[in-house]
Amino acid sequence: MIEYVPGLENVPAAESAISWIDGEKGILKYRGILIEDLAEHSTFEETAFLLINGKLPGESELADFSRRVGRARKLSPELRAVIKSFPKDASPMAVLQACVAAAAAVTKDKSVYDEKQREESAVEFIGKFPALVAGYHRHRSGKDFVEADPNATHAADFLHMLLGEDLDPLKVRAMDTCLILHADHTMNASTFATRVVASTECQAAAAFSAAVGSLSGPLHGGANEAVLHQLESIGSKERVAAWFEQKLAKKEKIMGMGHRVYKTKDPRCNILQELAHDLFDKFGSFPLYDVAAELEKHAIDKLGPRGIYPNVDFYAGIVYARLGIASDLGTPIFAVSRIAGWAAHWMEQMRHNRIFRPTQVYQGEDKVDYVPMSERKAPVRA
Amino acid sequence: MIEYVPGLENVPAAESAISWIDGEKGILKYRGILIEDLAEHSTFEETAFLLINGKLPGESELADFSRRVGRARKLSPELRAVIKSFPKDASPMAVLQACVAAAAAVTKDKSVYDEKQREESAVEFIGKFPALVAGYHRHRSGKDFVEADPNATHAADFLHMLLGEDLDPLKVRAMDTCLILHADHTMNASTFATRVVASTECQAAAAFSAAVGSLSGPLHGGANEAVLHQLESIGSKERVAAWFEQKLAKKEKIMGMGHRVYKTKDPRCNILQELAHDLFDKFGSFPLYDVAAELEKHAIDKLGPRGIYPNVDFYAGIVYARLGIASDLGTPIFAVSRIAGWAAHWMEQMRHNRIFRPTQVYQGEDKVDYVPMSERKAPVRA
Repeated sequence: MIEYVPGLENVPAAESAISWIDGEKGILKYRGILIEDLAEHSTFEETAFLLINGKLPGESELADFSRRVGRARKLSPELRAVIKSFPKDASPMAVLQACVAAAAAVTKDKSVYDEKQREESAVEFIGKFPALVAGYHRHRSGKDFVEADPNATHAADFLHMLLGEDLDPLKVRAMDTCLILHADHTMNASTFATRVVASTECQAAAAFSAAVGSLSGPLHGGANEAVLHQLESIGSKERVAAWFEQKLAKKEKIMGMGHRVYKTKDPRCNILQELAHDLFDKFGSFPLYDVAAELEKHAIDKLGPRGIYPNVDFYAGIVYARLGIASDLGTPIFAVSRIAGWAAHWMEQMRHNRIFRPTQVYQGEDKVDYVPMSERKAPVRA
Repeated sequence: MIEYVPGLENVPAAESAISWIDGEKGILKYRGILIEDLAEHSTFEETAFLLINGKLPGESELADFSRRVGRARKLSPELRAVIKSFPKDASPMAVLQACVAAAAAVTKDKSVYDEKQREESAVEFIGKFPALVAGYHRHRSGKDFVEADPNATHAADFLHMLLGEDLDPLKVRAMDTCLILHADHTMNASTFATRVVASTECQAAAAFSAAVGSLSGPLHGGANEAVLHQLESIGSKERVAAWFEQKLAKKEKIMGMGHRVYKTKDPRCNILQELAHDLFDKFGSFPLYDVAAELEKHAIDKLGPRGIYPNVDFYAGIVYARLGIASDLGTPIFAVSRIAGWAAHWMEQMRHNRIFRPTQVYQGEDKVDYVPMSERKAPVRA
């Protein structure tokens, strides 16, 4: 009998060659390439190609891949009808989960047993996610859908479909970098959910929709919005010290700090912080950023190098806010990026699939009689 | 380092007190009560209460629970709009997965940390599933929705909402029994998916929608429809022997026979077979049933007591067909039943939750340089 480990912590659930983390040293690699190098030199399209195909694309491969992702950003009339059927005050993550499942309902099934068709499904959903997020945001804002432009970059077109305007290249680059940084992160909860659901050999959409559901939970993707609320509640740089002492005294959780995997500063956080710096230099200050920087500094001063460090959620929400994006879209944007990783893990899972059917430790009754209603005791009412 | 086991087979993933199987002896119990006793004496409502609350209800408890489930069978105008937004040729499972996620989008969030609100979510979705399945079937058939009747039994009201008519009590009892039989089955793939997704502390709907996606896979819930197609392709009782020999010779899979857990006849299959008998006695013969019975007999004659036995999927499709239900609704009906088990496992998971974040065995590259595009080798074209 194998020992029961809650949450399967440290239990290997898959063999994988997609991403790798050294939490002690603060290293994250996609397909062996440092995240810092990808953030500086790559684009989301190239990074997505790398994740799903295992190598960097050549020039014509990248052009072809980008065009196909671009075409997949177009929403069919059927999907537009589904988006428009939702009330305007719905949770964008619940709508995204529903619309991703709906994508399987309104399109012809693809074989999950054929590598070429799997790659086509991956491209389809990498393109569809930003279109669905932007589409619902337009609908709830009472605005028309903005047509996708297959020739634009993924980051630029996403922002254009979402906001209806072309943003400054520095802002587009900031979004592109955020999409690169969130694209994969080994066996996290939603990636594991993708593999678990996909292992029944269902359509890709069914697994990706489940992953969105997993990401919607506050223990997983919901944190970047919570960080914004936390910074707003602190209010100003001057109030950080008192707020921090109170949190420590009450042993309450500080949102956006600490990570189950990283024991030092999350490498993605350094990159995001630089991005935030550049944005604020060019487009003016933002009080929340000052609060965040002070909070980080204070935590390190107080707790030392083995203390708690900001994680990727800490600056992501601030960057999105600076781009003029609604605070409840942080988690959907996470999904727009992570679909690349989910797709890569799904393809890897399907190459050597085995259905996930673990076992349980039974702790219930052994033998209970079915007692007819007339012989049951009446419940004791308080 | 814990050993990697594909599919986590025999790896305990949860402590549970809900259901229990002895696969050698062919025993299945819910909360310690034999499935045979529940199939004979209980109703789906009572069984659902048992699964989620851990004990049989008293008379007033059952009446109250049944009324609440009945009220939950009513579809809001928002959910009707979502259902109607789907094209009429969509996969009913994809539509169900989307609509369950949509239910979270169109209703107010409930706390997943409060036992009373969790029980309310369970009741909500136990009621909503048959309404969504029936609702989409009406829509795709070009017919009006049939209003739910909170005072009817769950099985009767589901059939009424689906088919628009009141069926013979024997047919209603057959549906009720099918719903009891499929309601839970320890740590199967969709139940595990429920727990994995729910462990991020997302809304119940996000986890139940993921479970529907898992159930849609051919390795899990898709089998009862495949059994019907197989029996149709055999065509007649007389052709069973030749067909069977050919399958064995080619070592091809026989749908609806054999089970990862049961080494003898699935206890649910005996009950379904009796049900099928009763239905055909009263409502006349059905060639598919004769083929199925002959196939079972032939397999036992040929392979002996350690051979392959029919599983729960084997007769379920035939029973649904005899009730006049479309063959692609077998898996959605499975979901209408299994939501009771998913809800029970979700509630149990949330009482002592720990996020599922297993690890991976990394098999990829250690160190790869980011090579600028100009220095990459052109791909070799065939």
